[in-house]
Amino acid sequence: MDEDFISRMNLPDALKNMTKEQLYDLATKIRHYLIRTVADNGGHLAANLGVVELTIALHSTFNSPRDRIIWDVGHQSYTHKLLTGRWDRFPTLRQHGGLSGFPKPSESEHDPFGTGHSSTSISAALGLAKARDACGEDYKVIAVIGDGAFTGGMAYEALNHAGDIKADLMVVLNDNKMSIGSNVGGMAEYLGRIRSDPKYSRFKAGVEQLVKRIPVLGDKMVDSAERIKGGLKYLVAPGMIFEELGLTYFGPVDGHNIVAMQRIFRQAARMKGPTLVHVVTEKGKGYRFAEAAPERFHGIGPFDLTNGVPHSPGKKPTYTQVFGRTMLRLGGENEKIVAITAAMASGTGLKKFAEAFPDRFYDVGIAEQHGVTMAAAMAAGGLKPVVAIYSTFLQRAYDQIVHDVCLQNLPVVFAVDRAGIVGEDGETHQGLFDISFLSSIPNLGLMAPRNEDELQHMLYTAVYGAPGPAALRYPRAHGEGVELAEPHLLPWGKGELLREGEDLLIIGAGTVVNAALAAAERLGRDGVRACVINARFIKPLDRELIVYWARRCGRVITVEENVLSGGFGSAVSALLTRNGLYMPIKQLGIDDRYVEQGPRAALLSRYGLDAAGIYDAVLAFTGKAGKKEARGAL
Amino acid sequence: MDEDFISRMNLPDALKNMTKEQLYDLATKIRHYLIRTVADNGGHLAANLGVVELTIALHSTFNSPRDRIIWDVGHQSYTHKLLTGRWDRFPTLRQHGGLSGFPKPSESEHDPFGTGHSSTSISAALGLAKARDACGEDYKVIAVIGDGAFTGGMAYEALNHAGDIKADLMVVLNDNKMSIGSNVGGMAEYLGRIRSDPKYSRFKAGVEQLVKRIPVLGDKMVDSAERIKGGLKYLVAPGMIFEELGLTYFGPVDGHNIVAMQRIFRQAARMKGPTLVHVVTEKGKGYRFAEAAPERFHGIGPFDLTNGVPHSPGKKPTYTQVFGRTMLRLGGENEKIVAITAAMASGTGLKKFAEAFPDRFYDVGIAEQHGVTMAAAMAAGGLKPVVAIYSTFLQRAYDQIVHDVCLQNLPVVFAVDRAGIVGEDGETHQGLFDISFLSSIPNLGLMAPRNEDELQHMLYTAVYGAPGPAALRYPRAHGEGVELAEPHLLPWGKGELLREGEDLLIIGAGTVVNAALAAAERLGRDGVRACVINARFIKPLDRELIVYWARRCGRVITVEENVLSGGFGSAVSALLTRNGLYMPIKQLGIDDRYVEQGPRAALLSRYGLDAAGIYDAVLAFTGKAGKKEARGAL
Repeated sequence: MDEDFISRMNLPDALKNMTKEQLYDLATKIRHYLIRTVADNGGHLAANLGVVELTIALHSTFNSPRDRIIWDVGHQSYTHKLLTGRWDRFPTLRQHGGLSGFPKPSESEHDPFGTGHSSTSISAALGLAKARDACGEDYKVIAVIGDGAFTGGMAYEALNHAGDIKADLMVVLNDNKMSIGSNVGGMAEYLGRIRSDPKYSRFKAGVEQLVKRIPVLGDKMVDSAERIKGGLKYLVAPGMIFEELGLTYFGPVDGHNIVAMQRIFRQAARMKGPTLVHVVTEKGKGYRFAEAAPERFHGIGPFDLTNGVPHSPGKKPTYTQVFGRTMLRLGGENEKIVAITAAMASGTGLKKFAEAFPDRFYDVGIAEQHGVTMAAAMAAGGLKPVVAIYSTFLQRAYDQIVHDVCLQNLPVVFAVDRAGIVGEDGETHQGLFDISFLSSIPNLGLMAPRNEDELQHMLYTAVYGAPGPAALRYPRAHGEGVELAEPHLLPWGKGELLREGEDLLIIGAGTVVNAALAAAERLGRDGVRACVINARFIKPLDRELIVYWARRCGRVITVEENVLSGGFGSAVSALLTRNGLYMPIKQLGIDDRYVEQGPRAALLSRYGLDAAGIYDAVLAFTGKAGKKEARGAL
Repeated sequence: MDEDFISRMNLPDALKNMTKEQLYDLATKIRHYLIRTVADNGGHLAANLGVVELTIALHSTFNSPRDRIIWDVGHQSYTHKLLTGRWDRFPTLRQHGGLSGFPKPSESEHDPFGTGHSSTSISAALGLAKARDACGEDYKVIAVIGDGAFTGGMAYEALNHAGDIKADLMVVLNDNKMSIGSNVGGMAEYLGRIRSDPKYSRFKAGVEQLVKRIPVLGDKMVDSAERIKGGLKYLVAPGMIFEELGLTYFGPVDGHNIVAMQRIFRQAARMKGPTLVHVVTEKGKGYRFAEAAPERFHGIGPFDLTNGVPHSPGKKPTYTQVFGRTMLRLGGENEKIVAITAAMASGTGLKKFAEAFPDRFYDVGIAEQHGVTMAAAMAAGGLKPVVAIYSTFLQRAYDQIVHDVCLQNLPVVFAVDRAGIVGEDGETHQGLFDISFLSSIPNLGLMAPRNEDELQHMLYTAVYGAPGPAALRYPRAHGEGVELAEPHLLPWGKGELLREGEDLLIIGAGTVVNAALAAAERLGRDGVRACVINARFIKPLDRELIVYWARRCGRVITVEENVLSGGFGSAVSALLTRNGLYMPIKQLGIDDRYVEQGPRAALLSRYGLDAAGIYDAVLAFTGKAGKKEARGAL
């Protein structure tokens, strides 16, 4: 089979007529295609390499799209995409207008439910299964979930419910012994015991012989054979935790043995009620650089196929790197500082902190809710916790921030990485809500740096200068290449005047301030004197500075990488009206929509948040109404 | 011991010198005091009656406040309060300025961490335990968590982590066989098997004998005695799920036997690493009306001590009741409608729906995240799910609403009960954030009825007239006593003009509209002609209606029961500036703070959201600036 031939096959149906050898040959071809495409476009490589055979086994056993396969998180759905009509479009993966890196119902009928965040698939499968039953249909519903996603409490909520209401569905536990980094928790250790130790199966054989001999030991010892058989469920079922929760357990099975998986899937599919099939896979399988360093190949940018080395890593450090280095430094100076992350030790830049201070580093697994409340209690107990979670995942801990941290006014620091436009990961991963959900919470301070130097000072200020809990949000991006000063306190709640002007005030929060400054310079050449303020603090806003310059300029434009509703511009607008300034104001940001995938710079440009966009917006705004007549009521 | 004597004792230390008889006598006195106080003030009765002996056993074994006892949810902390210096103040329970119904660090040093929402205690205990270790201290940390709270995924996240990092802490599982209603899930069934069946302990004895005889059976059968002993952990430990997660299990123990609990607590406290003590209690214990109907006595208003009948239930139906009746009706007409609640079948008014349509009713337990994503999938599968969750608890599912429901634009209906000022439950239960966190989410419609009749139509409209997902928010309150029409469609995104006026526009969302109308009438008598609009739709706002009257009036006041940041007023303000109207606007609502406990009416008055408050705000606002000169730029 060459690739042209594969692309013309009627997949996934054609899988059913393929020999074992053809299936393995296909697996090899898919692996090459995956590695090549991710080397070009970036993406999630290690997880996808791990599930090639698993995906083939599923699609050769079940009938998608009639049967519904839900990929938890979904970053491991590339082979699924290749097998369901997206072979030719695959080189557009993660590009603007191209295939998503995650399952997406709008992309294919083979994607019955969109995913992106972790631990949702069992809930989704249960919902589809109950809808199926209510509508009198009889398709199969299969959730494929990794052992990493299994640390998320939501997965447990759903398992617990599925086991109770006995819906017909199958959970495929894809156990690759890792979360994004190494996996966390008692459950992971439990799976390890099942997986690694032949004693479970040997023990089972031993006990079965033992049971046969029981009668000769007399009936005093046990009340009845029934009773001991009930108890022996513990011995013969390695997945007894799942059995106790009400699911029938199958496995463990080798996740690179297609035939063995087909057999177990068929067997499980014949059962009534919920089943759990435990499949053991190897992350990064088939690409030696990924096998050796699966965490580095979890989500990766374009790289050199021949040696696995990323292309042009860029000279300027990323915001994440500067955060990581600053944490390392602050951690060295203050032993009360602890760092908490949810399965993102590497992604948040905390690896070096973790190595230097293993006792003060907590990877809680994919468990943002627990991580935030634990941090609150650590602060209550006298420590200085810094919680580093991506903007989009921090949504999971919204209630814990409201209820456990801020209501008690506990000094937890939130490092909100991947805030704003996140790029190629697309809709499910954009960090476009955090200003809104964080700034409505009482007691919480919120900052956004305009460059990597300011990030250092904001982290320092959050730790040492905040009157209560504080958050800083920063993008997935390289810094501006500025010099890094000694970390120091910023005056709390004070903004920075970057450029004086009389015609118009532009206030930005975060790196958009740099675009605003560039726009102002261009406007200056056109004779428009724009004042530019770097807010630094989204909350509390610098009342004095903003009101003074707003009054002088008579009109205001705000710029932010966030939805407008409840965002930075909305806070500035409220500040002005509170101070009796009813003047023309224009809010630039994301207007009540989800933002698609694409390069960060291209998306910023598309949504008018680069220098050109701000420049155009100013012209449109100032063109509409003259300057002085709209200065408002005071 | 009479009560005066008890109030003068040096509790909790004095417990250590009391005889068994004195402890039980104290338990009886406490029970009487609890029943009397809750009969007067309302509160959580059944859960508190269940833990009287458990609380005495904890405080007579450990040394609070040195040792930290964390009550999950915390509505069962009344006995704890009585034993820790709050005996005399107890009659102020849940009153404005009085004792909170939940643990609160600002109230007592015996409350080391505030609670109110479910399933946080193990995370909090773990955080305190790690802070203790880091600070070189050696106090005990104890989390007391109900089996209901155990259905929350966060509890599992924390158990999983605690089992992994081996912190010294004790989890007391208070197993009363109930959530708020009857409990849900495979875990509940598992606990039931441990609890109810003596075979576990008898089986254990039997197996121990069996092990002794193994050598005579020959060594072929098992590889080694070690191996079988490892396997036998399953047989001898009834709490083996917890053991597998890394906690040492003790129990089950009778939660009304003080001496037995003291013994097991001491034993568990001697262990290194995390332990779980399984205590079996009876909800409502000692008050026969509560024993017979623990769900009705979960959270209850004032009632008659002699017969358990609530005082003056009120003639007007509550919003919750009208929601429940409308669901019953819509459910009868459309079999695609399913209802989902998170352990609040009774609290959300869905009991009758559940009885009438048991196959279309889902109580997922305290598992809001799972419930919302399951609902999303049900919608994807062709059903019409209505998710009824209190405003404050819906915070738990924020990410699932953003990511699973609204990104996929799935037609899920959210019935957001207890929105706004919630009353005596206080800070942790106020529904003051939902407008902010919901209206920043794309694709989601949001409504608020001004009376119970409108609630019906909004529910109908959410189900039949919404272009995507929709939410309606309504308060914990009696309705206005208006007549109930046939449920019908409201025009999507259209508000209602209640009163014409030229001097000032007042726009409200929800029942505050009635206060606005009353204020407008009073203003009319003073010669101020206020226009009043009932927004009905917080999103999308009625652009045409609002812009027209805002332009005519030249100044605007908005009224809402929500924080101002990202709230209704902020949306109205953005609408006006988008339409080039830069006019005086004043936003009434809750200004960036948590709101304390107290009667709903008193709190509305205190925060200026009743007729008098709106009237005063209008006078202050119009006094500041004349009418026409501030009309803005257009």
